[in-house]
Amino acid sequence: MSRQSNRATDSKKMNSELFTLTYGALVTQLCKDYENDEEVNKQLDKMGYNIGVRLIEDFLARSSVGRCHDFRETADVIAKVAFKMYLGITPSVTNWSPAGDEFSLILESNPLVDFVELPDNHSNLVYSNLLCGVLRGALEMVQMAVDVRFAQDTLRGDNVTEIRMKFIKRIEENLPAGDE
Amino acid sequence: MSRQSNRATDSKKMNSELFTLTYGALVTQLCKDYENDEEVNKQLDKMGYNIGVRLIEDFLARSSVGRCHDFRETADVIAKVAFKMYLGITPSVTNWSPAGDEFSLILESNPLVDFVELPDNHSNLVYSNLLCGVLRGALEMVQMAVDVRFAQDTLRGDNVTEIRMKFIKRIEENLPAGDE
Repeated sequence: MSRQSNRATDSKKMNSELFTLTYGALVTQLCKDYENDEEVNKQLDKMGYNIGVRLIEDFLARSSVGRCHDFRETADVIAKVAFKMYLGITPSVTNWSPAGDEFSLILESNPLVDFVELPDNHSNLVYSNLLCGVLRGALEMVQMAVDVRFAQDTLRGDNVTEIRMKFIKRIEENLPAGDE
Repeated sequence: MSRQSNRATDSKKMNSELFTLTYGALVTQLCKDYENDEEVNKQLDKMGYNIGVRLIEDFLARSSVGRCHDFRETADVIAKVAFKMYLGITPSVTNWSPAGDEFSLILESNPLVDFVELPDNHSNLVYSNLLCGVLRGALEMVQMAVDVRFAQDTLRGDNVTEIRMKFIKRIEENLPAGDE
């Protein structure tokens, strides 16, 4: 049974709050299911990866963005098109490494953490870690292997939320895609 | 730690696809965690309830909708304001009972089930059951006890998705709110 037929033309704009609270329910469930924060972080990344490898197709269909020529262009597309489309925010792209293979996305506000208070006993939880997995999975499908991690997080007391992205390599062949 | 300060003014419009896939990850996780579909349905309803009791505050702040005078007005607000705001769709309100205490929301399309294929071994799964809980929880906070359930579901082969809502009673006093 497939429900994918009208996706590209049938976009629904929604406020982020139901998503935010549903994401909170997911994180809460994982905190019940797994022993420690590190395991939860890993699961969120893995779920995000599986989401990313599916979301990329929707993204390419909707955005009509073509192949990026370099990592700088990729960074701009992620910040200005992808984040805007799926989270309604536009992070700034900054902190480029001299070699041009690393940058940061600075999120002034992060819709995932509205309503959220992190309990004291979850000090190692990377609450929004799903996003890292989504970016990693989506980019892998366009032949880019990247490392993605949270460098700062307002939930943990930082002033901004910073996602650090590092280019690892271009993936040579069309590897068969699969869930992790 | 509270992140709620800017909620009412700081609305983020997003496409529904990331939400849809994240919701899918939640349902998948629950299917791993619980023995059978009935348990998963129950958990989704319970999570939805907890979301609803929090979402209502955001809804009232954003919509500036006042107290509804009767169940018909409530139905219209749910369909035209709430669904539009949080899911980007406007269900039609129909199939009123003669007594005016029951109606159906007909969803021509349901953003939660984009991308979704229900495996054969989950024939009793009410995939979108979170929505029933959200409606039940939100309405309870405005002193209305309602029964909410899926009467039809495109995922299970029906032509439309139908949510059936039944008014049970007005809740007399401001009961203390709490998670279920």
